[in-house]
Amino acid sequence: MSEDKVRQFTDFRKRMNERILAEDNQVVRRFFALDTQTYKAGALDVKTKEMLGLVASMVLRCDDCIAYHVAQCKEVGVGRDEFFEIFSVGLVVGGSIVIPHLRRAVDFLDQLESAEVAAPPQHDHGQV
Amino acid sequence: MSEDKVRQFTDFRKRMNERILAEDNQVVRRFFALDTQTYKAGALDVKTKEMLGLVASMVLRCDDCIAYHVAQCKEVGVGRDEFFEIFSVGLVVGGSIVIPHLRRAVDFLDQLESAEVAAPPQHDHGQV
Amino acid sequence: MSEDKVRQFTDFRKRMNERILAEDNQVVRRFFALDTQTYKAGALDVKTKEMLGLVASMVLRCDDCIAYHVAQCKEVGVGRDEFFEIFSVGLVVGGSIVIPHLRRAVDFLDQLESAEVAAPPQHDHGQV
Amino acid sequence: MSEDKVRQFTDFRKRMNERILAEDNQVVRRFFALDTQTYKAGALDVKTKEMLGLVASMVLRCDDCIAYHVAQCKEVGVGRDEFFEIFSVGLVVGGSIVIPHLRRAVDFLDQLESAEVAAPPQHDHGQV
Amino acid sequence: MSEDKVRQFTDFRKRMNERILAEDNQVVRRFFALDTQTYKAGALDVKTKEMLGLVASMVLRCDDCIAYHVAQCKEVGVGRDEFFEIFSVGLVVGGSIVIPHLRRAVDFLDQLESAEVAAPPQHDHGQV
Amino acid sequence: MSEDKVRQFTDFRKRMNERILAEDNQVVRRFFALDTQTYKAGALDVKTKEMLGLVASMVLRCDDCIAYHVAQCKEVGVGRDEFFEIFSVGLVVGGSIVIPHLRRAVDFLDQLESAEVAAPPQHDHGQV
Repeated sequence: MSEDKVRQFTDFRKRMNERILAEDNQVVRRFFALDTQTYKAGALDVKTKEMLGLVASMVLRCDDCIAYHVAQCKEVGVGRDEFFEIFSVGLVVGGSIVIPHLRRAVDFLDQLESAEVAAPPQHDHGQV
Repeated sequence: MSEDKVRQFTDFRKRMNERILAEDNQVVRRFFALDTQTYKAGALDVKTKEMLGLVASMVLRCDDCIAYHVAQCKEVGVGRDEFFEIFSVGLVVGGSIVIPHLRRAVDFLDQLESAEVAAPPQHDHGQV
Repeated sequence: MSEDKVRQFTDFRKRMNERILAEDNQVVRRFFALDTQTYKAGALDVKTKEMLGLVASMVLRCDDCIAYHVAQCKEVGVGRDEFFEIFSVGLVVGGSIVIPHLRRAVDFLDQLESAEVAAPPQHDHGQV
Repeated sequence: MSEDKVRQFTDFRKRMNERILAEDNQVVRRFFALDTQTYKAGALDVKTKEMLGLVASMVLRCDDCIAYHVAQCKEVGVGRDEFFEIFSVGLVVGGSIVIPHLRRAVDFLDQLESAEVAAPPQHDHGQV
Repeated sequence: MSEDKVRQFTDFRKRMNERILAEDNQVVRRFFALDTQTYKAGALDVKTKEMLGLVASMVLRCDDCIAYHVAQCKEVGVGRDEFFEIFSVGLVVGGSIVIPHLRRAVDFLDQLESAEVAAPPQHDHGQV
Repeated sequence: MSEDKVRQFTDFRKRMNERILAEDNQVVRRFFALDTQTYKAGALDVKTKEMLGLVASMVLRCDDCIAYHVAQCKEVGVGRDEFFEIFSVGLVVGGSIVIPHLRRAVDFLDQLESAEVAAPPQHDHGQV
């Protein structure tokens, strides 16, 4: 995934989230608020919760959700070794059908790491 | 999704459906015929059946199926408020993993609505 | 499914919902509240929303959710012909893997219909 | 799974299939007919098709469908070594989430094999 | 879930695992070994990995896998508040379709907690 | 899918597989090795196993896995009629939600067949 694609993905997510939240549907808006609340620190810290979100996204095989939680995990300090252990759980629980998503997850992580060399990390507080 | 992408998606679906139905496999052809029959008016009207098809596609997280049923629903008069209530059921039943598909569904719906301003609605009677 | 099993299923659901809601976890409690709110009348009426909930449960192949929405649909006046059209959408969208759940859904519906002959319908406002 | 449970499962399937097919819903009935037609010999023989049905049921994690196709495979001569290779594909593609279904599949196969010692195989031509 | 059912579940799992591992299929046996290896301490500790296994099982809606990981989590010290935060992630990511599994998970956890009052925790090192 | 896209897909898969296997995570590496071992000839021949892999990928709706197994099946001599019978099992078991993946599978197969006219088949021994 090129840097352009990462930005394109982030922009689309941001634009559509705003469009959805502008709609007068209280259930959808409450769901989005609840989604944000889910990953706040509580009995478990943010890092653990983001790792839970990542492995759940992986076994459900949703590329956008995986990319989102990879970025969030990276921001809260999940290291490359830890990422691969999360991936290993996702792979063993979810099976080889997860492999194409694993490839894209690693590609996205590589992209984040190389971007980091050139610029400080971006903070993003949107949904999934 | 740009107007070009909508056309590209429609063209690909049409071309491949023709290719698949030209094949000498009776099970596949009967399945396609059955799929069409499923959404005909009966005890339930077409609008209700298309809404059922849309929410089912949403929780199963299939973008092409969602786009197809959004277009069908639009044709039979589902309004924007109704769309968002269908989406809210899909979101609550299927969870945050549905969000990326919701974004693309809303984007596709926006595209259909803006196309409508310039031109009359297209009728499309293909599969999923 | 015998009448005893229906009662057992209803009792277990009720008891565990109370136990879960008694827990001090705001995300879980809000999710349950949101789930209830989802099926309230809005742009779409309750009957349509319950039918959406039923077909979504069917393609996701969750017996308890199917049973719950079958009961709710029955209460708001979904007729046997309409039930089978909802089932037909679920079957065609979800495939033959849905058949075992269809069998149990029909068995549950039969049970509800025969119970109705002897006694007035029970009102139940719990989650899924 | 005891011999009683196998019989109970077979009886329930048979009874409900009859009940469903007695209903005046052409889509559902055609789907059942199509399901039967799918496993008839064609370019691929029945044994291969039943093995395909088994592995598909396994990765979709449907116990009843797995049991049905295990019985069908057994009837058309799939041997124990072959069963375990089908299971291995299902396990690797579908992941550890398949393991509980694998346990029940092996238990069901064991049951069929021990029943066979005492009595000739039963022929069953129902759906899934 | 009664104490008898917990024992029955544990016994069946143990007996079938032995039966499966006795079979001469190297892929299946290696998969079981790999599954065990996945949850060993590494860059992430056992507690974190078991929590990852639990949330993955939850969104994939496998009761046996959930029960297994609930028991493992309990053994390595996951507290009730932490359990409910894992459940909240599973619920929000996976949607209301997860609720019936959540009920059974909480029932199983209650059972483990009340068993603990009377006797020391059982150690179990089997698969899923 | 154009010839360029097929090459792009193959290159990305190859590059990311190397990147993943270079990582010091034994579980992930063993999983990849096990995945390769799964499709080796045993009680069932390679052709049968690849067909099992294809139908499993189809009902789980993973385009990359489908494309991979279509290519592998083609290499070991699966004919067009046989492909469509595998597809018919996938379609009937998995439902209309499989149709968009069927379209892309047929498009990919068409592409492989037209490439074959111009050049000898490529051998590829990577993962999924």
